[in-house]
Amino acid sequence: MSTVIPAIVAPSATDPLFTGTIERRDVGPADVRIDIRWAGICHSDIHTVQGDWGPQHYPLTVGHEIVGTVAEVGGDVTKFAVGDRVGVGCLVNSCGQCTNCTAGEEQYCLNGATGTYAAKDVDGTITQGGYSTSIVVTEHFVLRVPEAIPYEKAAPLLCAGITTYSPLRHWNAGPGKKVAVIGLGGLGHMAVKIAHAMGAEVTVLSRSNAKKDDALKLGADHYFATEDPETFRTLRNSFDLMINSTSAAIDINAHLKLLALNGTLVNVGLPPEALPVKVGNLIGGRRSFAGSNIGGIAETQEMLDFCAEHGIAPEVELVSAEQVNEAWARVLASDVRYRFVIDVETLEG
Amino acid sequence: MSTVIPAIVAPSATDPLFTGTIERRDVGPADVRIDIRWAGICHSDIHTVQGDWGPQHYPLTVGHEIVGTVAEVGGDVTKFAVGDRVGVGCLVNSCGQCTNCTAGEEQYCLNGATGTYAAKDVDGTITQGGYSTSIVVTEHFVLRVPEAIPYEKAAPLLCAGITTYSPLRHWNAGPGKKVAVIGLGGLGHMAVKIAHAMGAEVTVLSRSNAKKDDALKLGADHYFATEDPETFRTLRNSFDLMINSTSAAIDINAHLKLLALNGTLVNVGLPPEALPVKVGNLIGGRRSFAGSNIGGIAETQEMLDFCAEHGIAPEVELVSAEQVNEAWARVLASDVRYRFVIDVETLEG
Repeated sequence: MSTVIPAIVAPSATDPLFTGTIERRDVGPADVRIDIRWAGICHSDIHTVQGDWGPQHYPLTVGHEIVGTVAEVGGDVTKFAVGDRVGVGCLVNSCGQCTNCTAGEEQYCLNGATGTYAAKDVDGTITQGGYSTSIVVTEHFVLRVPEAIPYEKAAPLLCAGITTYSPLRHWNAGPGKKVAVIGLGGLGHMAVKIAHAMGAEVTVLSRSNAKKDDALKLGADHYFATEDPETFRTLRNSFDLMINSTSAAIDINAHLKLLALNGTLVNVGLPPEALPVKVGNLIGGRRSFAGSNIGGIAETQEMLDFCAEHGIAPEVELVSAEQVNEAWARVLASDVRYRFVIDVETLEG
Repeated sequence: MSTVIPAIVAPSATDPLFTGTIERRDVGPADVRIDIRWAGICHSDIHTVQGDWGPQHYPLTVGHEIVGTVAEVGGDVTKFAVGDRVGVGCLVNSCGQCTNCTAGEEQYCLNGATGTYAAKDVDGTITQGGYSTSIVVTEHFVLRVPEAIPYEKAAPLLCAGITTYSPLRHWNAGPGKKVAVIGLGGLGHMAVKIAHAMGAEVTVLSRSNAKKDDALKLGADHYFATEDPETFRTLRNSFDLMINSTSAAIDINAHLKLLALNGTLVNVGLPPEALPVKVGNLIGGRRSFAGSNIGGIAETQEMLDFCAEHGIAPEVELVSAEQVNEAWARVLASDVRYRFVIDVETLEG
């Protein structure tokens, strides 16, 4: 059995999205059905539909920044009740058995975690994402969204928030630490807010000076344009941690030299090209080049609670279902400050 | 004033070494003059003379694995007395003022530490290394060599020993940690002995199976040949720490996949080419690619004491002054198990 629901659907890698329908499974004993209220637009949604990360099954509904209320719970569900304000991020399942899953790091599941969309589910179907009016998810992968976070702003925390919170926490951003954020988009602006709230001294590195005022308002202490070669001389040996929020093939060696002794540059964006690392830039300062992938479920809850406590929420621009194609075009043109969120009520028709 | 002493001299990047002379400065107030008894042959000596790391001033005497006895001390010297068994490694000076120097990490001196050879000294002369009968060094850069370490084996600890000890300590090799050592040469064989003594589970990754018996005798728990593609399937997601002791351009992506969650691959060798890192291999396991450069003076002393306590010493083959050209040829042919040490008495004539 299943239920047919309204959704925004990609018919192919190249055709415009349209309003159609998808199917949702019935609620099983451990499942929660969520009526979706808000869905964030992530650049990953576009990469996936366009086939940048491999071929896909179409039609496909994307979206992994999902917020809504619990509409139904299975008989074994203990953590949630109807009416709870909840969220779903990038993952809807994992093996639960491997070393990484049992360590609460489901995003690194050694048997392959199940993505919220475009992934093969346990029943062989392809998972369908949050640009839709409801979703059925195993209880373990549902997050509690504190009331202190404005409802319409919470969705982007489920991907942009946790993707930046996790490395900031793992590499101990905090008082006395100098943190650089490379790129000021959906992820970067959250990195600035979170690193600032953690007490770090935050520097934004952006291509031009266009976003300087924004960066300082978001909580950055310093701002430098990377199109100015002087930046790379001024900031040499400066940072304990650098979060590269872009998926562009930056000049990795020039950036590594900005790390202080024992510093780490962490990519959370995935450039398609390999980056040519000159090993001398690592050796000359015991520097590290690292990567980080979203966050585990427990850590995602920790991030939501942290944001509620510190009054942090993304800067969002709300769009209706019929504006989503236009919003995607603007994401591709870097014309968003800083995250689009779909008002899913406009999808109900 | 200065003293002329016997030394093995490189006349150019390409001509054979010959026995000649160099000058040593007189002992200043903070200096120690050491009568050199043993000098290790490091691959770096050859790289430097050949100009692989940039043009050099010739004639040049290399060698930065130096052991001998104190022959004279300056008036301000407090830590050493005539007759002490001491050593000198890769560094003979640093600014002493920068953040890294004051943190005891002189090897990362932000104003440029002074190498034991081929570096510009404070007086404008070029430093000359340990293939010679004596050396004059500022007290701070002199190490105490415990009597428990066999005299003729101690020299390679000053470079090969500290270069591997430092990252093993920094990244917490120890009980419960799985450590891989890539390459079983002068550095690699010390990495195996030290990691084993620290209590880690040690795996050697070497091109062929030729050194398997040696590796197990040195303390390795496991051995795999990297020329066998099966190795890269078997060992996927295995290691907490990998020490790449080679300066070859290894397949960095294949090796990164062998790291477990949060694992780090540390290069202590410097390949001339940039290594093309696919960022997905870092993101998919929160992995790090890092570099490490020798060690600070305090840590070098700690390493010597650790080796004395654990009965660790390099495997060495002793050579006379007139055998050094032949020894270099054998280093270039990877025909040494595992370090040549020059008997400096044979240089006295």
